[in-house]
Amino acid sequence: MTKNTKVNAAILIIGNEILSGRTQDTNTSTLATWLNSIGVKVDEVRVIPDIEKTIIETLNVLRKVHNYVFTSGGIGPTHDDITAESVSKAFGRKYESHKEAFKILEAYYKPGDFNEGRQKMTWMPENAELILNPSSGAPGFSVENVFCLPGVPSILKSMLGGLKNKIVGGEPILSHTISLKTIESEIAKSLSQVQDQNKDIEIGSYPFFHAGKLGVSIVLRSENQSKIDSCASQVLEFVKEKKIEVVDR
Amino acid sequence: MTKNTKVNAAILIIGNEILSGRTQDTNTSTLATWLNSIGVKVDEVRVIPDIEKTIIETLNVLRKVHNYVFTSGGIGPTHDDITAESVSKAFGRKYESHKEAFKILEAYYKPGDFNEGRQKMTWMPENAELILNPSSGAPGFSVENVFCLPGVPSILKSMLGGLKNKIVGGEPILSHTISLKTIESEIAKSLSQVQDQNKDIEIGSYPFFHAGKLGVSIVLRSENQSKIDSCASQVLEFVKEKKIEVVDR
Repeated sequence: MTKNTKVNAAILIIGNEILSGRTQDTNTSTLATWLNSIGVKVDEVRVIPDIEKTIIETLNVLRKVHNYVFTSGGIGPTHDDITAESVSKAFGRKYESHKEAFKILEAYYKPGDFNEGRQKMTWMPENAELILNPSSGAPGFSVENVFCLPGVPSILKSMLGGLKNKIVGGEPILSHTISLKTIESEIAKSLSQVQDQNKDIEIGSYPFFHAGKLGVSIVLRSENQSKIDSCASQVLEFVKEKKIEVVDR
Repeated sequence: MTKNTKVNAAILIIGNEILSGRTQDTNTSTLATWLNSIGVKVDEVRVIPDIEKTIIETLNVLRKVHNYVFTSGGIGPTHDDITAESVSKAFGRKYESHKEAFKILEAYYKPGDFNEGRQKMTWMPENAELILNPSSGAPGFSVENVFCLPGVPSILKSMLGGLKNKIVGGEPILSHTISLKTIESEIAKSLSQVQDQNKDIEIGSYPFFHAGKLGVSIVLRSENQSKIDSCASQVLEFVKEKKIEVVDR
């Protein structure tokens, strides 16, 4: 059996619009789902405002305690896009126009359209590596273990494909969901016993109210499929005993 | 003119299901919108796993640097609901069954239905204050400046009304949005000039792609309506000059 290498990450969402409640963040879910699929476990998310000092301090904490940090937001052309300059300062690197990014955007726009705002999007930390953007031209970038992505969900999504070969994940984290027509308090004790017997499986219990159905989803997570299978059997055993219906969800 | 008292808060989302990407968090947006409306500015959000040590450490940082902390998740009846016990430890208080909560739930359930799992939901830090739950019985609780709410969005929402008189906010944070049929790089320079002339207005620029429309929303935020109005006029001035169309969003 191979020994699992645990690889973890933090997600740092940068933007006043999330903190004000105006915009519903969906990038956390997109990034977390994708990272899980390549064996990277997200163990922390932070949302912070567009304030330089806060970005620098938070980034300098996160990048030292996680294998990877993914930032989202603040790399556009306007005055409130201060992520690239803040990341430069966090790493003590010069903030400058990236030659390759400049070439990409110069070719992307019609002659005369590559204005000051757009040129700002080529500014990033010295020696940053580009993350290509198949959707709207302006690349993201990475410095060491920090990957900086835009805030617009569709653009962020389009950039993940090109990121894949830059991230070295561990064993993919597998999951199995059993949805039941019951309520949590009916199964709490039995589920707790199953958890005690399966210390290395992460067992979550999540009530749902969906499309007129009320129930509980039990989610088993581990890198080891056979352990998940054995744990699932133990859950189904008490489910059968209690005559609880298993439902699709 | 009254002097504004700035009141801030952190939101702490507790739950593996958000970090795995399985569940899309919506409580941040709900809480932030509501807090803004009562004059409390959210300046940090963290999402952390159901791990006792992490909950204790994070809470003990957040509660010291923010006026209020709102937690969501982990107060249900199952083994993975460890928020209440972790909060007790963070405050060095006994973890015990709350008499009033016990009475509420005893009355809420049919005789015989108030089982061990349900009784677990009455356990919380010694001398906690209850936050009533008009939707599903089991109350949340507060200790000092920390308010613990459930993770299920509909239940969390139903509890905010009862919380209102426990939170002392500052001046409500007002906002005004101007949506334009343009792209960010066309307005970046002018907008930056307006920001320079209105240092105490928070000006955000957010591209949108929505219902076939592509544009930019400019959001002005401040406690002062007349400053927002004056800033809005300056934005509309350059918008007119550049012949950019104002759109509904």
